[in-house]
Amino acid sequence: MALFSESLTKLIEEFEKLPGIGHKNAQRLAFYILDGTKEQAKELADAITTARNNLKFCTVCQNISDKDVCDICDNSSRDHSTICVVQDPRDVAAMERSREFKGVYHVLHGAISPLNGIGPDDIKMRELVLRITDDVKEVIIATNPNIEGEATAMYISRLIKPFGVKVTRIAHGIPVGGDLEYTDEVTLARALQGRREF
Amino acid sequence: MALFSESLTKLIEEFEKLPGIGHKNAQRLAFYILDGTKEQAKELADAITTARNNLKFCTVCQNISDKDVCDICDNSSRDHSTICVVQDPRDVAAMERSREFKGVYHVLHGAISPLNGIGPDDIKMRELVLRITDDVKEVIIATNPNIEGEATAMYISRLIKPFGVKVTRIAHGIPVGGDLEYTDEVTLARALQGRREF
Repeated sequence: MALFSESLTKLIEEFEKLPGIGHKNAQRLAFYILDGTKEQAKELADAITTARNNLKFCTVCQNISDKDVCDICDNSSRDHSTICVVQDPRDVAAMERSREFKGVYHVLHGAISPLNGIGPDDIKMRELVLRITDDVKEVIIATNPNIEGEATAMYISRLIKPFGVKVTRIAHGIPVGGDLEYTDEVTLARALQGRREF
Repeated sequence: MALFSESLTKLIEEFEKLPGIGHKNAQRLAFYILDGTKEQAKELADAITTARNNLKFCTVCQNISDKDVCDICDNSSRDHSTICVVQDPRDVAAMERSREFKGVYHVLHGAISPLNGIGPDDIKMRELVLRITDDVKEVIIATNPNIEGEATAMYISRLIKPFGVKVTRIAHGIPVGGDLEYTDEVTLARALQGRREF
């Protein structure tokens, strides 16, 4: 016999499907829903379906957007001659938080990973190449500093450089506030290679 | 400017309202929804609204149930002369998992807590008293072993004993698999008081 009513059991099961939510936690969330009002439950449910149903990608940069062209691509005060290439929409958010970048983005939605059978055609690579016109001066590659990210960066670099565009890679090094003693050797080697003169 | 599209921002905000879900986690859940299919999103959303809209209480034991009388109260093979009083529907589930109890339950939906302004009328106390008939032989009080739970247990005991019903309290003691050395002194004192002869 089930320990909870049918619809409550179903809700717990649904919450358990979410990443990082175990059984105990799913139970807690389900009871939180039951403790709240019907309106609160409806608001959460509506947000889920609306976000998923509204999901589309900016036709220019491929970032998640409610509109055909996202706010960043539509913003004429941004530098459209500099494109920062990232793997994921979350990376755009991270870059924006740094307030350092005034150009536009291109979201690949993944990285090349031969081991997982992900090639250039499985990510938004073609869309990137189509954006490389005479107006583009620099492409900054900000894929993740791991094997897939580096392979993707290398691939893009080889693909785009023939167009006569400057291709750069964001710097790797010791994080600000980091401790030299606890920095891994690969990062430290990269920090040394990337050293600058005072 | 918002870092994410409107509907995605709204979804992250909604997830953040859930207990134990911080901003980073809410973001992760939201992207998980976007990565899934529309059907998966709809299934979660439907489970939330259905569970909340279907929420009702068993007219006998006050446990959460989809029906007027829950499966336990409706089960004639259970001992209806023994009522186990708990604070919360989750406690019913915990008791059921122990497979030790064959009687029926009464869910108070809270505990008496004068400091928080919660009196006997704010929990399902009246409903409990109305169930005490000649057919009831024993009331086992399984409220939590804290101040509120103990106060509630005491209150129920004084209220029901005059009806000539046996009122018992579940034992407090060292958890099975627990370590004497690391057991707090209150639990240890209770374990001593509750000692039994071999």
